[in-house]
Amino acid sequence: MTTDAGTEVPAGGPAPVTVELLGVLAYGELSAFDRLAEDARAAPTLTGRAQLSAMAAAEIGHFRLVEDHLGGAGVAVADAMAPFTALIDSYHASTAPRSWLESLVKAYLGDGLGADFYREVAGWVDPATGELVRRVLADTGHSAFAEREVRAACEANPHQRDRLALWGRRLLGEAVTHAQRVVAERDELAEFIVGGSGSGGVAGLIRTVQAAHGKRMGRLGLS
Amino acid sequence: MTTDAGTEVPAGGPAPVTVELLGVLAYGELSAFDRLAEDARAAPTLTGRAQLSAMAAAEIGHFRLVEDHLGGAGVAVADAMAPFTALIDSYHASTAPRSWLESLVKAYLGDGLGADFYREVAGWVDPATGELVRRVLADTGHSAFAEREVRAACEANPHQRDRLALWGRRLLGEAVTHAQRVVAERDELAEFIVGGSGSGGVAGLIRTVQAAHGKRMGRLGLS
Repeated sequence: MTTDAGTEVPAGGPAPVTVELLGVLAYGELSAFDRLAEDARAAPTLTGRAQLSAMAAAEIGHFRLVEDHLGGAGVAVADAMAPFTALIDSYHASTAPRSWLESLVKAYLGDGLGADFYREVAGWVDPATGELVRRVLADTGHSAFAEREVRAACEANPHQRDRLALWGRRLLGEAVTHAQRVVAERDELAEFIVGGSGSGGVAGLIRTVQAAHGKRMGRLGLS
Repeated sequence: MTTDAGTEVPAGGPAPVTVELLGVLAYGELSAFDRLAEDARAAPTLTGRAQLSAMAAAEIGHFRLVEDHLGGAGVAVADAMAPFTALIDSYHASTAPRSWLESLVKAYLGDGLGADFYREVAGWVDPATGELVRRVLADTGHSAFAEREVRAACEANPHQRDRLALWGRRLLGEAVTHAQRVVAERDELAEFIVGGSGSGGVAGLIRTVQAAHGKRMGRLGLS
């Protein structure tokens, strides 16, 4: 049995679409690690650098949960990730932060967007995978740091606030565009989302994610 | 009470020299995270990238143990690290890997050098700090990956082996030079090492570290 993407899935293992979802999730975590680690270098203080580095390290903790889960089902995480690296790299290239505050906003909103999507999906996959996804998405307690830093900067400087609000909206737009490209290339994934989300379909899922994004913008002081 | 480096230490808190040692340890971990994360990007495979990223993340786990320990004693880790960032950054700048294999050799030997030094020191500080240091140095199980990769590359290519052996010796030389500069600038730290190491002094400690380095070179197939 192989997935749309051509990944070998052992007989009796997880459904191919589940492997695809976990492949996207795993590479999402690994690439987020990479971007956060790079952004941490530009931190204005050692404390900020340590905080963003800790956020990056938490992504690897999540990545390893997915790796172990797939490994237990006989699927190498590298194989599951491979079909999705180019598109996720393209998302990050199109949203490279140009400042420390842009890094924090991206870390916070990006984590949230991924979590919204996978929280919906967790109910549509087999129970063991659903449980894994919920563990991976558990808040690691780092978000309070980003909220505090961004809110303080916005309160001190309304012009900064406007620019970051624009940045937050652009991040949503790029994320949706890239997610649509992933789904457009994978019929099974599209069917899976339509089947899971009921009458709402992919568009309904996007609306759910958009609403949650708006609330998160509010918590950063950007709405 | 302040350390040589000027860090405020609360009355009844850890000895100033202990704060200095933990400051070096903490920034050693944070900067190792940063270098490993950058090196992971150059991995030839997704599996290698995930492995080096996991090594980087483990450094942050260690960093946070030190941060919590210092925090419990009323010392901000950023203050404890600040006096040592320039010298440790200088070590990394002088030993920037130019290839994936150089990255692995540096990760493996660098972790080992730090561990050797702190294992000696763990017996000379207060018991709680000694216990912390031993936990921080516990092998995270990532070293087997570096050993395997480097050995395989060396067996396949003796020329590669010679170049990496030279690299391994240079890493030791740079580490010793930089460590000597740290000690030379801090009288209390020098006295602490002389006091702890008995008649061997700083030179004896360096010999101990050198011997262990040679054994590690052997495990990589580089002796």
